[in-house]
Amino acid sequence: MTQPLPTLEDVRTAAARIEPHIHRTPVVRSRTLDERIGAEIHMKAENLQKIGAFKARGATNAILALDDDDLERGVATHSSGNHGQAVAYAASIVGTQATIVVPDHASKVKIDAIAGYGADIVMCAQAEREQRLAEVVSSTGATVVHPFDDPDVVAGQGTATLELLDQVSDLDVVIAPIGGGGLLAGATIVANAAGVPTVGAEPEVVDDAQRSLRDGVRHPATGAPSVGDGLLTGIGQIPFEVLIAGQTSIVTASEQQILDAMRYVVERTKLVVEPSAATVFAAMFTHPDLVAGKRVGAIISGGNVELTKLAGV
Amino acid sequence: MTQPLPTLEDVRTAAARIEPHIHRTPVVRSRTLDERIGAEIHMKAENLQKIGAFKARGATNAILALDDDDLERGVATHSSGNHGQAVAYAASIVGTQATIVVPDHASKVKIDAIAGYGADIVMCAQAEREQRLAEVVSSTGATVVHPFDDPDVVAGQGTATLELLDQVSDLDVVIAPIGGGGLLAGATIVANAAGVPTVGAEPEVVDDAQRSLRDGVRHPATGAPSVGDGLLTGIGQIPFEVLIAGQTSIVTASEQQILDAMRYVVERTKLVVEPSAATVFAAMFTHPDLVAGKRVGAIISGGNVELTKLAGV
Repeated sequence: MTQPLPTLEDVRTAAARIEPHIHRTPVVRSRTLDERIGAEIHMKAENLQKIGAFKARGATNAILALDDDDLERGVATHSSGNHGQAVAYAASIVGTQATIVVPDHASKVKIDAIAGYGADIVMCAQAEREQRLAEVVSSTGATVVHPFDDPDVVAGQGTATLELLDQVSDLDVVIAPIGGGGLLAGATIVANAAGVPTVGAEPEVVDDAQRSLRDGVRHPATGAPSVGDGLLTGIGQIPFEVLIAGQTSIVTASEQQILDAMRYVVERTKLVVEPSAATVFAAMFTHPDLVAGKRVGAIISGGNVELTKLAGV
Repeated sequence: MTQPLPTLEDVRTAAARIEPHIHRTPVVRSRTLDERIGAEIHMKAENLQKIGAFKARGATNAILALDDDDLERGVATHSSGNHGQAVAYAASIVGTQATIVVPDHASKVKIDAIAGYGADIVMCAQAEREQRLAEVVSSTGATVVHPFDDPDVVAGQGTATLELLDQVSDLDVVIAPIGGGGLLAGATIVANAAGVPTVGAEPEVVDDAQRSLRDGVRHPATGAPSVGDGLLTGIGQIPFEVLIAGQTSIVTASEQQILDAMRYVVERTKLVVEPSAATVFAAMFTHPDLVAGKRVGAIISGGNVELTKLAGV
């Protein structure tokens, strides 16, 4: 690594920078949920964030950190999900052009949302997305905003936990989902600085983060499909370095546990949570010892899910 | 009327009384929703309230206002919905016994929720519920907690709007659903005192409140079924008197508009809203002139809906 890892100070800088453009999301409680888990669960509702997910934080921080020359050439990324919306949203704030390379399988709802922020959309086959993104960069000079392996993105995601610790005192642990690791790394920087450990939750079919931290080397993504479609990617280098140095651990949950947890949480808390976000609850239901008797900060990463999927149709 | 109508002072008293037992629910924004309606919509998320609906406020206020002799004999009501849960919840706070008469058609989820608060449940045919409740009162001496035609209940429901006006400055209008009228009457007491008019939203198949305010006499419920199953009841005497004296108006929405609005709001805001709550959004979509260009406080009354209904299955 040539660049230093993001710090608590970087998260604070990010918080000040993005504050006019993001929601200070509420913390929600549910007695039924607390009783089922046997802990005090303080849910940080990032599903109520701009674009319906925490990703708005990191993308906004990264794009607000660009200089005028960069902004003139625009920004780009590839994404079938929340990061694409986040980059499109953040670009619209500063008035720069975003180009989002979107795989053909992306849902119309998400494509419409990206277009709604004024972004250019380049559709392509899933396997060609890296190449198409490189072409966009080559022709426009756009800056690529990486979904997680970027210190500004990690610092931006950390602002969710900075708010959470301000909203709820004396938390014993903070739990968040892990895919590329931006959210958990940001949470770990902030929580560990306050003496609070973190836990990452991932689908057991894509358990590369758990094995990476256990073995001390980055394992690639398993390539398996999962209902936790925001968590399929392998852990990034920067998140890996943050987490390996931090006080954190990773737990997994099965596909069925994730789906069951999603429906339970939606029915009981009245918050729409996407499968990736439900992984946190599935992990707590499956490993109650992790959090029993504790004051737990649980980051609900997003709520972008189709209603038919919610209902199990 | 022999008893005086509830006042702003009663709502303030209620707020102080119930504060330890209810959530100060967040106010949520959605850019997509604002753009569709052409207004600033500040959603007071009472779906995140205890028992998943604002009804926890009124029942808690009414039960906390009882004296020790009353509490020794317990409380009772009949309800297939949120009010039954609210009375059971409030009774559990003060350690008094609640008996809830529940019609046979009530969903298992709701019956389980009522039982979960330690209430006694008396199942009966829908047509027999008044008689069964009378039997309960006769045998136990329990105090009946009416769902809306009670000054303490109306004052309790008004606390949602008291919080909303504290959370959002300079609202131009507050909109809430109307069934029996407790929520809208409470909102009107509070909002009108601040110079803010209110709007009530009801399903057009059960438009008794609209006709009652227009004609200056209470019309009974139409008896028609509606997806807005919390709004089937006719307007109560106390709410009617509050509303007829207040600055308020009533608008209606069709069944299809309510269902469409429910799905739209859930998908876009990530908040689970029950059909009765969606009536407010259906009304704004159908009558955009009501709120165009305004700062609108919209009370999301509750989120107790089955996922299959949400998905339109």
